[in-house]
Amino acid sequence: MSEPRFLRALRRQSVDRPPVWLMRQAGRYLPEYREVRAQSGGFLGLVKNPLSACEVTLQPIRRFGFDASIVFSDILVVPEAMGMELSFGVGEGPKLAPPIRDAAGVARLSIPDPDKFSYVYETIRRIVDGLPAAARQAAIDGVDDVPLIGFCGAPFTVASYMVEGEGSKNYVEVKRLMHKDPETFMALLDKLVETTTGYLVAQVKAGARVLQIFDTWAGELAPDDLAIVAVGPVSRLITKVRALLPADSAVPIIYFARGCADALDIVKGAGADAYGLDWRARIARSWAVLGDEVAVQGNLDPACLFGPAEVVARKTRSILDDVGHRPGFVFNLGHGILPETPVDNVKAMLDVVRLARV
Amino acid sequence: MSEPRFLRALRRQSVDRPPVWLMRQAGRYLPEYREVRAQSGGFLGLVKNPLSACEVTLQPIRRFGFDASIVFSDILVVPEAMGMELSFGVGEGPKLAPPIRDAAGVARLSIPDPDKFSYVYETIRRIVDGLPAAARQAAIDGVDDVPLIGFCGAPFTVASYMVEGEGSKNYVEVKRLMHKDPETFMALLDKLVETTTGYLVAQVKAGARVLQIFDTWAGELAPDDLAIVAVGPVSRLITKVRALLPADSAVPIIYFARGCADALDIVKGAGADAYGLDWRARIARSWAVLGDEVAVQGNLDPACLFGPAEVVARKTRSILDDVGHRPGFVFNLGHGILPETPVDNVKAMLDVVRLARV
Repeated sequence: MSEPRFLRALRRQSVDRPPVWLMRQAGRYLPEYREVRAQSGGFLGLVKNPLSACEVTLQPIRRFGFDASIVFSDILVVPEAMGMELSFGVGEGPKLAPPIRDAAGVARLSIPDPDKFSYVYETIRRIVDGLPAAARQAAIDGVDDVPLIGFCGAPFTVASYMVEGEGSKNYVEVKRLMHKDPETFMALLDKLVETTTGYLVAQVKAGARVLQIFDTWAGELAPDDLAIVAVGPVSRLITKVRALLPADSAVPIIYFARGCADALDIVKGAGADAYGLDWRARIARSWAVLGDEVAVQGNLDPACLFGPAEVVARKTRSILDDVGHRPGFVFNLGHGILPETPVDNVKAMLDVVRLARV
Repeated sequence: MSEPRFLRALRRQSVDRPPVWLMRQAGRYLPEYREVRAQSGGFLGLVKNPLSACEVTLQPIRRFGFDASIVFSDILVVPEAMGMELSFGVGEGPKLAPPIRDAAGVARLSIPDPDKFSYVYETIRRIVDGLPAAARQAAIDGVDDVPLIGFCGAPFTVASYMVEGEGSKNYVEVKRLMHKDPETFMALLDKLVETTTGYLVAQVKAGARVLQIFDTWAGELAPDDLAIVAVGPVSRLITKVRALLPADSAVPIIYFARGCADALDIVKGAGADAYGLDWRARIARSWAVLGDEVAVQGNLDPACLFGPAEVVARKTRSILDDVGHRPGFVFNLGHGILPETPVDNVKAMLDVVRLARV
């Protein structure tokens, strides 16, 4: 049996049509997700319950037959395991307490044993068990063996939350620390690289066949800072993970640095196998900067899914036209699917991608 | 007497050193501003009181001797004059009610007579009167005749607030309207072009010698949408304003489309005389895309001003190095100065810019 088209595309091998999955495909736009979520005692309760986390991971596979699955979790379980208190208020973003603002704060953070995330690995094992049946239920042609993606937040993005203590508008605190005490900030990034390395390797051992690194806030940085505090640590993380994985594991690593369309010449320094593009990037010219040796994933504007089905279809087609016949393309949104997205528009998008021929 | 270096730079004429001003230079980082603001019955009360608005406009000229002044106002006075209710809650962003979501909402909006903004013109006249004394008080070499900038929000950015009703994270409502009913959305943008044209022309008649168009949310748009709903209306606005100004007025127009570093080939379709760059753009390569015939303004990361003075100086110098000896550069931040910015760091930045030789 041939490998799944998602893995083939990430290796730039030929495929019959572009593989497709969506960032946050297990999420609030699905009524079946909202139902499980309502019974789970909050978002974090859901993340930490392998049974429920597995269930919501499989839901979009059953419904849509996506070409890839991604473990339901959150990037902020890492700082939590390092000793911070993580909470999600109702209708609010995440909070991490107390915020890390100095060398003493960084010194207090532990580098936890990868076992600390054992609930994630149990979720992964359950998902891997459940994926064949979920794919069969979807009954989408050529989607039977669905690879599971493990993931983490990139060191800079996770550090931003740790320093700000929550989401931010202007990232003043994290940039203040970065400029005022670069040694301390680099020490924080190093601890994150160290912790995340073990976490990603263990996700692969549990059954993840692809890894994605989410750098949601990289686009807030000026280019010279981007190179040093975002891309540099990701490059070290990728090198370390590759060194620890068995030589024959060949796990493709995707780096998604949001808001960096004009800085892909810097971003590609991460040395990933594939790069996610957000909806502001144009595929062909972005790929020209990233180079032929990497795969590319993206990039429909998630807000476009609120428009009429014909707009969704037209914009989806326009991305596929821009890709042309290059091998190595994975269709996705340019950011996570939004909570109120009409489910029918996801279908309209998928219909177009599945008719595409590479 | 030679023209001020700000005007000369915008016309790409030779200057002794780069002119410098800051977006939001009249603002909360200044103690003298906070004092006037506290006595003014809220932000909108301050904007609408020509005496106070003039006073806060002149404050940063007196303190720092900037090369340009910008009238203290807000981009959302335009939708207010068109019939929406504008409010600024304490510690909150602006609100516009009721949000415009359909053709009936757009139809209800008036295209007000430019006289509706007479308080802005009175503020401008007072500022123009007060600028020579303010510049003398600063006593910065070669800053005596300080040009005043009039401004407006770009149609897309203002429309975003009108449709969302407030600031937004994902711009779902404005994008929904844009995709669902493009005719209605274009009618809204047309009304904004019409209203803003008269408003900008009247600001020039009152004494503004430069105009800047702020497109704060342009960077939220995918490139094909950017061209149609952001840059297109700005291009029409600029054409109309130029047609209505006296032939000898030669008022340079600056277009600042935030978050568009990778889309400057689209942005330059606005046909402005100068383009503002945000802190994610790299000056030399951005300018190469914009072309030699335009001036460029930017682009220090405003959050960098929270770092130590030596970082501020280094990053300021790095921008000036990137500019090199090209004529037509105006030093500025890459976005508005942030409320908590230490005043001493503004001084550290200015010291470097003023030592630069073009």
